[in-house]
Order: sequence, then C-alpha cells, then structure tokens
Amino acid sequence: MAQQKKLVEEITPMEEDFARWYTDVVKKAELMDYSSVKGCMIIEPYGYAIWENMQEILDERFKELGHVNVCMPLLIPESLLNKEKEHVEGFAPEVAWVTQGGNDKLEERLCIRPTSETLFCEHYKKIIHSWRDLPKLYNQWCNVVRWEKTTRPFLRTSEFLWQEGHTMHATAEEAKAETLRMLDVYTEFFEKVLAIPVLRGRKTESEKFAGAEATYTVEAMMHNGVALQGGTSHYFGDGFAKNFGITFTDKNNQLQTPFQTSWGVSTRMIGGIIMTHGDDSGLVLPPAVAPIQVVIVPVAQHKPGVLDKANELFEQLKAAGLRVKLDDSEQSPGWKFAQYEMMGVPLRLEIGPKDIAKEQCVLVRRPDRNKSFVPLDGLADAVKAELQKVHDILYDNAAKNLQARTSIARTHEEFLDIAANRPGFIKAMWCGDPACEEKLKQETGGVKSRCIPFEEENLADTCVCCGKPAKHMVYWGRQY
Amino acid sequence: MAQQKKLVEEITPMEEDFARWYTDVVKKAELMDYSSVKGCMIIEPYGYAIWENMQEILDERFKELGHVNVCMPLLIPESLLNKEKEHVEGFAPEVAWVTQGGNDKLEERLCIRPTSETLFCEHYKKIIHSWRDLPKLYNQWCNVVRWEKTTRPFLRTSEFLWQEGHTMHATAEEAKAETLRMLDVYTEFFEKVLAIPVLRGRKTESEKFAGAEATYTVEAMMHNGVALQGGTSHYFGDGFAKNFGITFTDKNNQLQTPFQTSWGVSTRMIGGIIMTHGDDSGLVLPPAVAPIQVVIVPVAQHKPGVLDKANELFEQLKAAGLRVKLDDSEQSPGWKFAQYEMMGVPLRLEIGPKDIAKEQCVLVRRPDRNKSFVPLDGLADAVKAELQKVHDILYDNAAKNLQARTSIARTHEEFLDIAANRPGFIKAMWCGDPACEEKLKQETGGVKSRCIPFEEENLADTCVCCGKPAKHMVYWGRQY
Ligand SMILES: [Zn+2]
Ligand SMILES: [Zn+2]
Repeated sequence: MAQQKKLVEEITPMEEDFARWYTDVVKKAELMDYSSVKGCMIIEPYGYAIWENMQEILDERFKELGHVNVCMPLLIPESLLNKEKEHVEGFAPEVAWVTQGGNDKLEERLCIRPTSETLFCEHYKKIIHSWRDLPKLYNQWCNVVRWEKTTRPFLRTSEFLWQEGHTMHATAEEAKAETLRMLDVYTEFFEKVLAIPVLRGRKTESEKFAGAEATYTVEAMMHNGVALQGGTSHYFGDGFAKNFGITFTDKNNQLQTPFQTSWGVSTRMIGGIIMTHGDDSGLVLPPAVAPIQVVIVPVAQHKPGVLDKANELFEQLKAAGLRVKLDDSEQSPGWKFAQYEMMGVPLRLEIGPKDIAKEQCVLVRRPDRNKSFVPLDGLADAVKAELQKVHDILYDNAAKNLQARTSIARTHEEFLDIAANRPGFIKAMWCGDPACEEKLKQETGGVKSRCIPFEEENLADTCVCCGKPAKHMVYWGRQY
Repeated sequence: MAQQKKLVEEITPMEEDFARWYTDVVKKAELMDYSSVKGCMIIEPYGYAIWENMQEILDERFKELGHVNVCMPLLIPESLLNKEKEHVEGFAPEVAWVTQGGNDKLEERLCIRPTSETLFCEHYKKIIHSWRDLPKLYNQWCNVVRWEKTTRPFLRTSEFLWQEGHTMHATAEEAKAETLRMLDVYTEFFEKVLAIPVLRGRKTESEKFAGAEATYTVEAMMHNGVALQGGTSHYFGDGFAKNFGITFTDKNNQLQTPFQTSWGVSTRMIGGIIMTHGDDSGLVLPPAVAPIQVVIVPVAQHKPGVLDKANELFEQLKAAGLRVKLDDSEQSPGWKFAQYEMMGVPLRLEIGPKDIAKEQCVLVRRPDRNKSFVPLDGLADAVKAELQKVHDILYDNAAKNLQARTSIARTHEEFLDIAANRPGFIKAMWCGDPACEEKLKQETGGVKSRCIPFEEENLADTCVCCGKPAKHMVYWGRQY
C-alpha cells in the first residue's frame, strides 16, 4: 500500500515551485525524514548510503595524502570556545548549550561543537613540541550542531554530518600549500565524482571563516540559479596557534609558532546533487556515489527463463564490482521504471523473453532516457561504459547550466537588473570595500559575493557599486 | 625529543598497579588523550585506526545480514524520552541536557542521546504501516553521551562511539531470533577477530537494559579478574511499540503491533583488547584490527642494499593486502623493537646484511617473542601464517586466563571467600530473587550477576545466598 501510493503521488514540477520540488524529491526518494527536534533531520538508509559512498572515496583520498583520522569530543567548554575572539563571535550566536549533566547543574556550560578548531588547538598544544612532530595532518568525520532559525533538508540543518581536516605545519608556505591542495581535492571530488562543475576562489574578508586569514571555496550553481558553497578550505596563519600558545623548537633550536589549516565538506553535498542533477521525474544520482548503479527490471518475468537470466546478470554485474539491484517484485515493469527513475538510479537494465532470444538486453540511461540494445556477451563492460556516459552527460548539463546562469555586470544598473531578472552568478568588479558588498546585498535582497576567482578578468576599471577603482573581479550570487 | 623520551619512560608493571599499568599503556601507545571536558576523551589516530578496523569488519557483517545504516538526530526532546517509563527512569539520571540554542532559552529541554530507542520508535511509527514494511533492520554508527561520575579511558567515558542496531519484526519469534543472531555476530567478532573468548548468556531482571524484556550479553575476563561486558543484544517484545503506537496491518488485514530488538558494541572493546592481551611491555593487538600488522625494522640500514631490500619487502607485503610499516628512521633497531612492542604490533620483521646474503629475514611474534628465520621466497604467506599464529596464541592465553579465573561457589561462605580472594568469575546457584543479588553485591563490595549462561550446570540445589531452592546457575563477578 505504502509503495503503491507512490505511483499516484506527483512530484511538483520544478518550474512551478522549486522549493516544493526539492522537498518532494527528498521525501519521495526516502533520503530523509523530519524528526521532532526542529531543524534536525533523520537521514534514511537510501540517503545515508550516498553519504557512505562519498565518505569512502574522500577518506581514501585523504589517507593517500597522509591524513589520519581522530575523534575529538562533542562538547566544548565555554572558556575554550572563547579563546579566539573572532571565532567565538562568529559561532556563539548559533551554538546549543549544555547546562545540566544528569541531575546536576554544570559549573561551566558546554557547547555542542559547531566546528572543532578550539579542540584541535588544545590537543595540538599538548602534542606538538619539536619540528619532528610536524606536520600534523588530522581529520575527523563527525556530527556538528549550529542552531539555525530557517532550515532545509541537507542544505541547512541544525545538526549535520561532515569531515573537518585540521593541520599544523612548520611554515606558512607549507600551510598555504595544504590549504590549496585540499581545495584541489574538493574540486576533483565535485567534478570527477559528483559530476558538478565548480567555481574556485577566495572569499572576501566579510565572507571568510571566523578566525581564518583566508578562506577558499568551491561554488556550484543549482538548477534555479542559486549558488551552493560546496566545500571550504581555510588558511589560519598562526592566529589560533598564538592564542592557544602552541610552539615548537625548530632545527636550529629556536622556538617557533606553527601555521594551521582547516577544511571541510558536509552532507549538504547531497542537497547539491539533488539540485544540480534532479529533474521533474525525481532524483538523478551520479554513478560514483549512487547506492544502486544499475537496476535490473525483468519484463514478463512469469515467462520461463526470464528470472533465471535476470539473476544470472545480477550475479555477473555484482561480480564486476557494480552496485546492482534486481527488482523481481510483483509490481509492473512500468511501476518499477517510474520508481527507480524517481530514485535517480543512473542506469536501468530491462530483460525479457525477446531479449533473451536475441542474447541481448536493454540499457536505459536515467538523465536522457537513451535506450540501447546491448549484447549479453561483455555486458559488464558495456554497463560501465554507459555509467561513464551518464556521468559525462550530468557534468555537461551542469556545465551548460553554470555557463547559462553566469552574467556580466559592468554598471550598477546592470547589476541590479541581472540580480532581479536573471538568477545565477554575476561577474562584476569590486573596489575591495565591505561597504559595497553590504550595499549590493541590501539593494538586491541577498546577492552576496561568492568568491574572487583565481583567474580574474578585467571587466571594467571601476567598482560596480561605488565607481571607485576596482581591485578584484568577484562572482556574486544568491546562496543556499 | 618527544620520541626519545619514550624509551626512558617505564610502563608500571601490571602486578604493581593494574589501573596505572592500563593508563600508562593507553597514554604511551598514543591511543587517547584527555580533553578539557571531564570524562570526554580524544581518540588519537592510532586508537581511532583500531576502531576503524573494527567498524569495517562489523559493518560488512551487518550488511551481509541485510542491515542498513541510518543517521538519527543527536538530540531527544524530554517528552519523547519520557514515553517509555522504565527507559526514562534508567537513563534520565545520566543524560546531558541542552537548555539553550544560540541566545534563546529552549521551550523544551533536549537531551543528548544516551541511546536512540525513542528516536527509532518515533520514526518507525511513521514508516511502518503494512507487513510489507517489515522487517526493518536499521543500524547507526554514532556518538552517545552518558554523564558518568567516574570515568576511565575507553571503558567508561561520558561520550563514546558505538553502533546501535534497532530492528522491527512482524512476530515475536522473528525478533527473538534476531536478538540471538546478533549475539552470535558479537560472539564471533570477539573470538575470531579480537581473539577474546566470551561467556554468553542472559542478564537477570535487575541487570537488564531499561525497557527490555530480555538482555543478552557477551562477557569477557580481563587479566586482573575483572569482567567486561563486551556487547549486548536486547529483545524488547512489543513494549516500546505499544507505547509509541506503532502498528501494521498483517496479511489478513488485521492490525498488529510489531516486535523489536536493539544491540550494540562500542569503543570500550578497545579497553577490552588492552586488558585481555596487553603485558608489561605495553599493548598487544590482535592482527585482524591492528593498524600496523607487521613492522619492518632494517638492521645496519646504512649498509648498501639493506634499505632497498627493506623497501622491496614493504611493497611486496603491502601488495599482499597486509597493513605494513617500514621504519627507516635514524633510531637504533633496539629503540624500534621496544617502540613497536609497546605499540602492540603483532609481528616484527628484521632484515640486515646477513639475512639478505642468506635470502631470509627474521620474524618475531609480539606475544611470545618467538623468533623464526623465514626465506624471502613466499614471504607474504609466511607472514600471514605467523599472524594467524599470533591470533591463536592470544586466544589461547585469554582462554586460559578465563578458565583460571573462574571459580565455583556452593555455599555462602565459599562465595564470600572467593569474592575476597580470587578475582574472576564465580559460578553459583541463585533462587531468582533480586534481593539475593543485592545482598551479595553489598557483602562483597560489588560482585554482581554477570549472566545466566545458555547452558547451565546444576552445581547445587539451593541459592548460594538465601538457601532457598535454586532456579539458575549464574556467573558473578566485578565489572568495569
Ligand atoms: Zn565599491
Ligand atoms: Zn536467594
């Protein structure tokens, strides 16, 4: 019954109401459910399996680069959070406070970590003494809490899952290189794994992480023209280290302060996938992280030999390392087609009596419904090639959307006009004054600077806001 | 410098002070560090890598059996925790309460999950409607908080990591079978993976989980005669389901209440490994979860060809799927021997000019220091065989300790005498009255019932405490 209902329920068309389309997709594809704590979600098995696939790929990459995983405490004493001034000002308004343990009121209140810089610094102070102890390349996979007023599944939730890398280095150069190296890792992950093209650049002073010297970001463009900050990598200089009194003796026996980075990506990437690749039939998943890469749907499955052959193909594809599912339930093939399209399974394999007679099967790609007849001989390779093709199609479509949704504004008027009428990124020059950022944000009701790209173009000589000499080209946009 | 210090520092001998020996080992092997929140620890990379290996093995096993992972929220509203009376009475005294979010006082306080039965039940109520929705076989890997007054690294900490399985079934029989199936999974994990023999049985009424109908346990015996509850599996009947109003329509279209289980193991297993296998030289790790299974120590490494050969062996063993480390640092071989023994690396491979000339190397097993000369031809297989041997030795030693530390008490006097003088398990008959459990606990200063084994012996006809007719044979002991 619960299953049959699904066919009847419609997903709100994207054009009609993007926000409703989004929540329809996350609910109907059973990615998440709401909990009784406002802003905290349940990640259901299908959604969590996507996160597990992301974790596995990223974790392997981090370890290849020499990082090791640790587990820091969930709770931070208020006095520890207070040690770095900018940091506490950035986070204190949005943390959850524990004030009671069992039946006792706590002497000092503890916040649930919104991020763990302070905990890592306290630990690093204890374990870093000599140049031999550097670099420290630590990462943790954990949950964090930021008390959000307005929440949206995966994109902005009071609790979310993420990884946070925290590294310490002997020199500023080495720490800066690490910051950019990890931005490269994120870029590659978005583009090669999630099939999401990204802009890369540096955040302006007003948009950078609380306590960082520089914040770098990868920014993606959603279907509806709203930007998503996909991952960030921060260079801290020696600011935190000095506040926490972390020092080491260098090779010349001189006392030095180390240099620090942090970097993270979170479950919001799942939201990014939905809004980059999804369509009016539901979810579309990039093959590298799809819990089911191929679904086998038998046609006329009551006829002799069909289920045997379907099972044989299932075993064959599984043995080839593919994540494959055979649906031999009583539902009709049509119902199954719609169901797995809604769930975003990248590839469907249909097999019926006629196909078996011809020693072939049908492969249907999710994004473009392209149908091909493929010989059963060498099937696994054909399936892998089609999955690669799905990835390429997803990436190309997203790249086209990114391009189509990027405009250039040379004047203040143009900027306001594009902000009002053409959702997406706006490339425009900026003088460097935070007052201009604030003014544009107010005038447009929320268009903010997204990043200063690594390769700037000289679109004009003056700031799009105040007309003073321009210092940088900036990407602007509304954000999730 | 930090590294050189280690050779000088001594580990307190086990016989002298077991508790200090334990904390020396966890600190010197860099498994954990203390944080500034009382009772919350930092799991350092070497300790966390053990946990990752445990997770990987268990997670694969769970998934083979059809379980899927989910992520429930960290926070539970007080009203939700209150829904099951026994459950809240069991946990309320030891939970941490969040009372403030950002700058606002919360209308209802939220506890940090001490366990997630209530959250799973609330979700199951929403997603279980028909017999087709059953069974639900969910698991989650997460952190939980229980506000402990006395803490000890890994064994009892205010925050710890664990997995909690929560399943729902159409019938009581199926749920009972699941409870025992997962106890079997834990038994096999302890014995085949951790090399720790366990007792298996049911908890008495006073020792069972708050809200369960029956709690099953695997219990291990530490070096010092103190028991460790390694993992538990609970059968809930339909108690929680009724309190939460979870129902489903069966195949005859009748409304039914489902039956529930939960089961979990935690980072305390790391404490169990230390106290089961460790010795006065430090940690001893079972090969299946050791972050480093073989350490290669070159001898006379400045001599031509030694490092080349060491590197060649490293690549060879790595390619064979072994977790191997080559230490080519400037430290002396003697320092390295002591260091990796302290870290509990199961096998050491020594290679020097003389070995190379003879086309052999030296393998030294950690537990018994057995030294063998092994031809380089077929090395990977020889290493794997030695690792299996290490596992067997650890298991045998632990089984001997378990046997030596199990006594039989037929009279009250014997019971008190053994409790005072022979630390370990006591097998004794019991009438079934909780008052006798309480009395024995008081008289002995902490010897409690550990479990009623699946196969009971008839040691006597009367209760060891009150002399009334005996109902069960019980294992008793002090516990961590
Ligand atoms: Zn300006
Ligand atoms: Zn009695």
